[in-house]
Amino acid sequence: MTLLFCSDSDSPDAWRAVFAEAFPRMSFRIWPDCGPPEEVRFALVWRPPPGMLSRFPNLEAILVLGAGVDSVLDDPMLPAAVPVLRLVEAGLPGPMSEYALAAVLHFQRSMPAYASRQREARWLREPWQPASQWPVGVMGLGVIGGVVARRVAAAGYPVAGWARSPKELRGIEVFRGDDQFGDFLGRSRVVVNVLPLTPSTRNILDAGAFAHMPRGAYVVNIGRGEHVADDDLVAAIDAGHLAGAMLDVFRQEPLPPAHAFWRHPKITVTPHAAAPTVVADAAGQVIENIRRMERGEAPMGIVDRAKGY
Amino acid sequence: MTLLFCSDSDSPDAWRAVFAEAFPRMSFRIWPDCGPPEEVRFALVWRPPPGMLSRFPNLEAILVLGAGVDSVLDDPMLPAAVPVLRLVEAGLPGPMSEYALAAVLHFQRSMPAYASRQREARWLREPWQPASQWPVGVMGLGVIGGVVARRVAAAGYPVAGWARSPKELRGIEVFRGDDQFGDFLGRSRVVVNVLPLTPSTRNILDAGAFAHMPRGAYVVNIGRGEHVADDDLVAAIDAGHLAGAMLDVFRQEPLPPAHAFWRHPKITVTPHAAAPTVVADAAGQVIENIRRMERGEAPMGIVDRAKGY
Repeated sequence: MTLLFCSDSDSPDAWRAVFAEAFPRMSFRIWPDCGPPEEVRFALVWRPPPGMLSRFPNLEAILVLGAGVDSVLDDPMLPAAVPVLRLVEAGLPGPMSEYALAAVLHFQRSMPAYASRQREARWLREPWQPASQWPVGVMGLGVIGGVVARRVAAAGYPVAGWARSPKELRGIEVFRGDDQFGDFLGRSRVVVNVLPLTPSTRNILDAGAFAHMPRGAYVVNIGRGEHVADDDLVAAIDAGHLAGAMLDVFRQEPLPPAHAFWRHPKITVTPHAAAPTVVADAAGQVIENIRRMERGEAPMGIVDRAKGY
Repeated sequence: MTLLFCSDSDSPDAWRAVFAEAFPRMSFRIWPDCGPPEEVRFALVWRPPPGMLSRFPNLEAILVLGAGVDSVLDDPMLPAAVPVLRLVEAGLPGPMSEYALAAVLHFQRSMPAYASRQREARWLREPWQPASQWPVGVMGLGVIGGVVARRVAAAGYPVAGWARSPKELRGIEVFRGDDQFGDFLGRSRVVVNVLPLTPSTRNILDAGAFAHMPRGAYVVNIGRGEHVADDDLVAAIDAGHLAGAMLDVFRQEPLPPAHAFWRHPKITVTPHAAAPTVVADAAGQVIENIRRMERGEAPMGIVDRAKGY
């Protein structure tokens, strides 16, 4: 029985150690060293090359090393019958909500303006408004979005959430579906995106969406790069309608050196660092899932391919 | 009866409106237009010129437009018998604790490193460590320091406080006096200063203090500029011992354009903006204090001149 590891972003040594302890009789192989294809029962992957997962006739599950599974589902040769499992939580909500709160405070406390004044040695105060006057909108209310919303709300910001399907979150105003998207954007001075990437959420933050946001609003993207129409975002900022953005995810990663985001004075770029996958947290879930499948039980985090998450 | 207003940092129009409503029969004058000196009963001041307060023989109280009264107490001609009243709270703890939390998150989430990489269009992740591994130390545990400590602790950081006199704060480890100052600094990865400025706290953050802090630690100063030995701070950062600082207060304000802080890549400068005095909050306290004195009762926030706060 083989588990095949394939990720450029995670440490194979750390995962090898995890499996050596939890499943001593399992063979741990690192792509492209697969061994006999028929022995591969589990694939532990992050952004695997297209077609790779179709090579293993006895594959029982595809375990994705993250919450976003778009790169796996986009593979046209993805085996139809093999369940795709995502990390349901695995330590992601903590750092992601922390990043979101850091971004909201950064904007509320005028840090971009002070950084630009510092370059000119210019002493000039910005008006301050309390958190109660900074409504924050969270796009996506799954496990991660729920934690983001609650954490930002706990810091005193009026928080609303938006989701495609009905959700309830105590203390959080919830908007739903296309009908209410404009109203949701209109009341949000900072919009934080944590949606999954699906055909219906691709480019959801485009010129039309930005036009609904109030003048002087900010965008924080910790979902996927493809949620944001890059040129529309730059245009909305340059027109003075939006005040700025903090972006952690991009259509192409690493963000190409020539991309306009790097050099834009009102855009903060971080290198997909909002939520490092912490091996210890993720390992518990991956191990538990393999054990469940060995016992014939349903694993956690089964992806609904029609929905895309 | 005259109230004399003297501040370069506060809006005379806003305060004139406050007094017109609360005390319609009081004459509101703005320094240097004092009217007859013997009619001045109250002085509402922020950083008044030395000697100014000695001119009014019937002065009943000096109401300071802030929590820090060092600029008033430093006046060698300060009338000995007139009580000095400071703003005890007046909305300061909220924005100050917010600024402190923004600074701690900024450092924990490697924002200075990402900002410097962005200038080079360089995609490189920093290791992330959870809040539980970022002990924060708060210097000064008065009303403001207490709120700062609790707010940062609520965000998940292990917080300790340090004060000259014994204090108790639930959930916060408290260090006390000179004996325990080194231990307090030694366990703090971020030190946030909110001490009042007194002869015994002047230059308290000097080379000796920085040497006690762990390698890679950060300084946040929202107390007074005179708490920090400027050259020692720059030296500790340039030697690689401290990782950086966020400074809101300075020995000379506005910070002179030639000062090294403006241009230091690891120092963030904000223009004494951590705690804007919000007129609505401060007004309630000033009005209440004048009413109490009119009734012959003790006002709030009487400064102990021997202690300096």
